[in-house]
Amino acid sequence: MPNVVVLPGDGIGQEITPEAIKVLKAVLKDSSLKLEFENYLIGGAAIDEAGKALPDDTLEAALAADAVLLGSVGGPKWDTLPAQQRPELGGLLAIRKALSLFANIRPVKMLPMLVEASTLRPEVVKNVDLVVLRELTGGLYFGEKGRKTNPPSAYDTLIYSDEEIRRIVDLGFQMARQRCGKLCSVDKANVLESSRFWREITLDVAKKYPEVELTHMYVDNAAMQLVRYPTQFDVIVTENMFGDILTDLASMLMGSIGMISSASLNGKKGLYEPAHGSAPDIAGKNIANPLATILSGALMLRYSFDLEDEAKLIERAVESVLEQGYRTTDLAKPGDKVLGTREMGDAVVAALGKK
Amino acid sequence: MPNVVVLPGDGIGQEITPEAIKVLKAVLKDSSLKLEFENYLIGGAAIDEAGKALPDDTLEAALAADAVLLGSVGGPKWDTLPAQQRPELGGLLAIRKALSLFANIRPVKMLPMLVEASTLRPEVVKNVDLVVLRELTGGLYFGEKGRKTNPPSAYDTLIYSDEEIRRIVDLGFQMARQRCGKLCSVDKANVLESSRFWREITLDVAKKYPEVELTHMYVDNAAMQLVRYPTQFDVIVTENMFGDILTDLASMLMGSIGMISSASLNGKKGLYEPAHGSAPDIAGKNIANPLATILSGALMLRYSFDLEDEAKLIERAVESVLEQGYRTTDLAKPGDKVLGTREMGDAVVAALGKK
Ligand SMILES: [Mg+2]
Ligand SMILES: [Mg+2]
Repeated sequence: MPNVVVLPGDGIGQEITPEAIKVLKAVLKDSSLKLEFENYLIGGAAIDEAGKALPDDTLEAALAADAVLLGSVGGPKWDTLPAQQRPELGGLLAIRKALSLFANIRPVKMLPMLVEASTLRPEVVKNVDLVVLRELTGGLYFGEKGRKTNPPSAYDTLIYSDEEIRRIVDLGFQMARQRCGKLCSVDKANVLESSRFWREITLDVAKKYPEVELTHMYVDNAAMQLVRYPTQFDVIVTENMFGDILTDLASMLMGSIGMISSASLNGKKGLYEPAHGSAPDIAGKNIANPLATILSGALMLRYSFDLEDEAKLIERAVESVLEQGYRTTDLAKPGDKVLGTREMGDAVVAALGKK
Repeated sequence: MPNVVVLPGDGIGQEITPEAIKVLKAVLKDSSLKLEFENYLIGGAAIDEAGKALPDDTLEAALAADAVLLGSVGGPKWDTLPAQQRPELGGLLAIRKALSLFANIRPVKMLPMLVEASTLRPEVVKNVDLVVLRELTGGLYFGEKGRKTNPPSAYDTLIYSDEEIRRIVDLGFQMARQRCGKLCSVDKANVLESSRFWREITLDVAKKYPEVELTHMYVDNAAMQLVRYPTQFDVIVTENMFGDILTDLASMLMGSIGMISSASLNGKKGLYEPAHGSAPDIAGKNIANPLATILSGALMLRYSFDLEDEAKLIERAVESVLEQGYRTTDLAKPGDKVLGTREMGDAVVAALGKK
């Protein structure tokens, strides 16, 4: 039986992951595939109980698992620790690195009933349905960095190997082929050597995918175009730093990152988590929004287990619940029916049954 | 008499710079300061007439001048040249570098009558009045770059010296002090060593400016916040690559970059130019919008000649012309009074007189 390691983490992570598991179990009730879920510690919770943010048994289990579902990590309690030991660097970044997750995927799909939450005009965002694919293990984040004297200075290195670029761009083409057939590769080739290299390799990989329409866009223009005319995009692929900025910017088209799911992949192996944080201020009150984590569960079915139909069932159930006017407090407007975290999970399960 | 070198450049640059000079002369008519304007070649026009994008006499004149007013460079005619010889790299970037212009300033001020042009909701953008200050001579653009073998790879270096950071951040504090007293320093200090260095120096410079409220923001969050809640910003200061992205993103709050002026400074010496390009498709038709260039002229009075009152007169005249319903075709909607390039320049001059 395929095995999913569940890492609730800190804050609202403890409340939202059980809702995702509830929905996953429900959608797989009549399926031939069953998933086994095992909980492990990560982040601040792991620091408190096991002395470090990524305990050995968590790491071993994650390495052996077919997929990992993560809630969120961090909180003020651990902010005074040295950066490397904190929940974020010591837990989340460490597990992403240990699993060699080189591709981060964030789908941004506007739902009609959420158009009003966006700061952009309804006609600009109403049909947004795009994915930003971000390289996650290279570039400025992991290149050589340090300080120099004479003159006093500091540096980071944006470096990419042929193979690092090739595998993420290839994944971009695959995703574009399964979606609307359009891939936009974002770089800064007019200035950066690493971007010119990126573009050369992208053009080479493109030969394998004649059915995909490839375009190139400079990163500053891409930021503008996401705000000016976001429906022009299908799949965007880009390097780590540019992707860090563009994934968040694209998510903001939705008005908040409260509904944004994400997948970080290395082949079929993946870590699935909401884009939002641990929100310690609202933790333990049964008011957190579990939908981004539930939608991350759908991504897990799609990317780690090839269960496209079941993934779509979850996505449609979430839409249906929102269509019925149910909202958690973060999304609620006058007239909406406000649900707690658990009740929202139940509502999604109920909506699954109504197909 | 202070001397301004005028570089009309290519495309609509030839039409919009004369309108800016017309307005500058008009506003200084009764002033004790007179400016002398001398035209020189740059860009494609310089390639055609003098064999290179930045001829020696242009460079000499610019180095000796008190300020430079630039239209725009580039066009399809020169796109087949090697990158280093083209109007952009060989002309514009070369002159910026030769003048050691380390600070790029882009004010983004929403005008009530232009709120409808934004893709953001009116209530989100209606009071936007911010400046993005971008470091222009360091970072990834100018650090060591190249290719490696074994494995095949390419790299760029994001490097900043103490002094490079100190001078741009100091300028940020000065600008904040003259505006609303808020400076937001944008970095990625949770990941980059150069950002941690940037933040340390910023905190040090801050000691000189206790009256300015300093905040720090990660670049991915800054991109989100510019779309989510842009009126929170007064002055944003950031390094070259982040600034490249954020200046364009901030400009897009206006709906287009057609109205965005910019200044690139090295102390009082400055190069002033519209943020938009040379638009070869509409060149020579007297339909280009000269307002960004006219507003760049206002920045010249403010930053190179300390003529704050005259700068404001120009800015108010532009507002007044727009309030009267006059538009160039790029901004025109049904019911507007459409003016040509020259007629728009005349209208601004006329509005100056009405104070
Ligand atoms: Mg980010
Ligand atoms: Mg730019």
